[in-house]
Amino acid sequence: MNPVAFIEDRRDGKGSTPQEIAEFVRLAHGGEIPDYQVAAWLMAVFFRGMTRREVKTFTEALSLSGKVVTFPGDIFPVDKHSTGGVGDKTSLVVVPLAAACGVPVAKLSGRGLGFTGGTVDKLESIPGFSAHLDLGRFVEQVTKVGCAISGHSEDLAPAEALFYELRDVTGTVPSIPLITSSIVSKKMAGGSRAFVFDVKCGTGAFMKDKSSALELSESLVGLSASLGRKAMALVTAMDQPLGRWVGNAAEVAEAVEVLLRKGPGDVRDLSLRLAASMVHLGGLAGSPEEAGRLVEEALDSGRAYGKFEEMVHAQGGDLEAFNERAARGGHLADATGVIEAVRSGVVTRCDAKAVGESLRVLGGGRLARTETVDPGAACHVLKKIGDPVTRGEPLARAYFSVDESRWSQARRLLEGAFEIGGEAVSPALVIDTVESGETGR
Amino acid sequence: MNPVAFIEDRRDGKGSTPQEIAEFVRLAHGGEIPDYQVAAWLMAVFFRGMTRREVKTFTEALSLSGKVVTFPGDIFPVDKHSTGGVGDKTSLVVVPLAAACGVPVAKLSGRGLGFTGGTVDKLESIPGFSAHLDLGRFVEQVTKVGCAISGHSEDLAPAEALFYELRDVTGTVPSIPLITSSIVSKKMAGGSRAFVFDVKCGTGAFMKDKSSALELSESLVGLSASLGRKAMALVTAMDQPLGRWVGNAAEVAEAVEVLLRKGPGDVRDLSLRLAASMVHLGGLAGSPEEAGRLVEEALDSGRAYGKFEEMVHAQGGDLEAFNERAARGGHLADATGVIEAVRSGVVTRCDAKAVGESLRVLGGGRLARTETVDPGAACHVLKKIGDPVTRGEPLARAYFSVDESRWSQARRLLEGAFEIGGEAVSPALVIDTVESGETGR
Repeated sequence: MNPVAFIEDRRDGKGSTPQEIAEFVRLAHGGEIPDYQVAAWLMAVFFRGMTRREVKTFTEALSLSGKVVTFPGDIFPVDKHSTGGVGDKTSLVVVPLAAACGVPVAKLSGRGLGFTGGTVDKLESIPGFSAHLDLGRFVEQVTKVGCAISGHSEDLAPAEALFYELRDVTGTVPSIPLITSSIVSKKMAGGSRAFVFDVKCGTGAFMKDKSSALELSESLVGLSASLGRKAMALVTAMDQPLGRWVGNAAEVAEAVEVLLRKGPGDVRDLSLRLAASMVHLGGLAGSPEEAGRLVEEALDSGRAYGKFEEMVHAQGGDLEAFNERAARGGHLADATGVIEAVRSGVVTRCDAKAVGESLRVLGGGRLARTETVDPGAACHVLKKIGDPVTRGEPLARAYFSVDESRWSQARRLLEGAFEIGGEAVSPALVIDTVESGETGR
Repeated sequence: MNPVAFIEDRRDGKGSTPQEIAEFVRLAHGGEIPDYQVAAWLMAVFFRGMTRREVKTFTEALSLSGKVVTFPGDIFPVDKHSTGGVGDKTSLVVVPLAAACGVPVAKLSGRGLGFTGGTVDKLESIPGFSAHLDLGRFVEQVTKVGCAISGHSEDLAPAEALFYELRDVTGTVPSIPLITSSIVSKKMAGGSRAFVFDVKCGTGAFMKDKSSALELSESLVGLSASLGRKAMALVTAMDQPLGRWVGNAAEVAEAVEVLLRKGPGDVRDLSLRLAASMVHLGGLAGSPEEAGRLVEEALDSGRAYGKFEEMVHAQGGDLEAFNERAARGGHLADATGVIEAVRSGVVTRCDAKAVGESLRVLGGGRLARTETVDPGAACHVLKKIGDPVTRGEPLARAYFSVDESRWSQARRLLEGAFEIGGEAVSPALVIDTVESGETGR
């Protein structure tokens, strides 16, 4: 193949054949097409896009570039993916919850980056928890326990990693066809048969407005369907953090509370909606309403928590030790700082991005993939949109182990996150849903 | 600087400061910004362009990235640049011609690439000719002899070479701001004070139509003016080859003929126009008409030829040996092939690009910069647009040393180059001119 002609065709809005796209991925992954040609092609895709058929071919080529997880024929696993939010611990609830309803859940997760957290980082705050299962053990656990959460293996869709890393450093991240193919190729390699996407929308999300979030949702669901996977996307609000806690160990503790029928309503509600979608796609309910009833019963009966315990133990985690330590606040860093309301009124803004960035500054997140995170760093969001406050009342409390200068920086971020006014409209949690035509097994 | 933010600004059509652009060039040239980021930026420039001010800053940064030729204060050298054509040997005529009128000419030339020839390759078919003068000798010869033609030194605008090579392999060649900055940065480093651009236009040129050729011309002249250089651009026809001969030694022989008042009218006419522009910019004529009279007199009196002899000798070339060999056809390769008219009529098309490509196939050109060329390979264009032909009459004769299979390939190209019809309109040679406001020393 002639890589320059391939780039020129994209640049000029001409099509590429499936063979050309597959060959391009193969040669790029093999190092036979240099990074600078891949980078130029990525920028041309940013401007010119790709057709649905091209995105499909590209995704297939990425997903088949390494190992592909295969489950026994009678297992129909479902995976769940969030585009990244702040305080979003729903995976910890949803995975055991759907599994408790009989849907095998094979969840592949990433680490946190920038101002958004990652499920792998959160789970690693449980003593002994192994977030990196080899593929054989991953399949075995999904088969035996009914669910597993594992860090994304480097053996799966390795070509995707090359494109992802180049996009990150060449200003070609915000492209719907590239985002879609990146997400779906990894999910395809993970072997699940149905995908539920949680597409975050708002100031604390990659997609800032509803129309772009819907566009991504439709692209994700449409691509998945074209590849023979059932799929559904929920467009959900990410203007303020989800729940009351942001931080790795703190979010595990809050997820446990939700599984124990305590915890904040937004985390519970979104978890129920997501899990119901998984049960629906998994073919275990005749209607979305029935799926809703099934997951609510599984949560309220404690079966979901039991499945969570089972999963954590299967992955070597000592949940009892974690819970004991959390009960006495030992999962949080020692130093604390508080920000207070400068006037009385109602919280009208509690910016998710600013809160997420303050946590990163406090050591709870990372800018580069190789940085380590402090599981104890946390931000307790005491007031959220719609909550009344009086002047001097605490709005948020931070927990950290870094020095005070970092707290000064984080405090400024947190102070900028809040606005207090006279009246607030509580935002809807689920803004829209998108699903492919076909559902049920 | 943050290279990703710099790329994103370009991608989103935001501006960059002069400091950012200069820093980007410096870091890219120093290898501190990797090629893939430069490539992504180039593609973003392809789509978003650059403002005049940005192009100016970018060009300055490129031109100052290495050595810069400086001439004694009383020398006001002029350089001439062609965007690349087929059979275009005008530099060989124009340089001594302008110099014979008293304009110092410091001509930096490239090698041929693709279907277009290069002045360096042509001159190297003269025995002993040294086309690579070191910069000190280049300045000395311009000062003493009045003109010099030298291959572009790697010491001049080395950052430009980096960007040029990346553009070549990333599909980012056809961008007016990038083409303009590439050309002008090298001319700036070459130390001349005025530039005459021959912007080729037509099927055998990079610019296929008049509007894009005019756009490039205006960009070249405007940028040069903004950098304090006098400049003029001629948009000239490149639908059919210039002159009757295409090939390295063959074109030198044809240029010598023009200098000796023989040779084809189109080469003579274009050379006179270009040289007059140089004389005009060099401030040696009160009006364009006077410049025209001066160059015609210098050509017809034989003084231009005398200057050519002087220049070739100064650069070690044995012009007498070349001329003797050319007189008996010894400068051409031995094997010949002919294509003939398949019908009687008038030549309506004689495609420059196809002729240029046939020469390359016959060994007279190259696809990669490192290939060597056969000086003896040539194509004698016996019939051009407007010439009457009878069926079976030769249209072109090729000279080559490669094997017959290459000739079969070249013959198909040549056959495809010609069309014979009932009537032809002889195209204008100079389509338009563009000059900056200021002229005269």
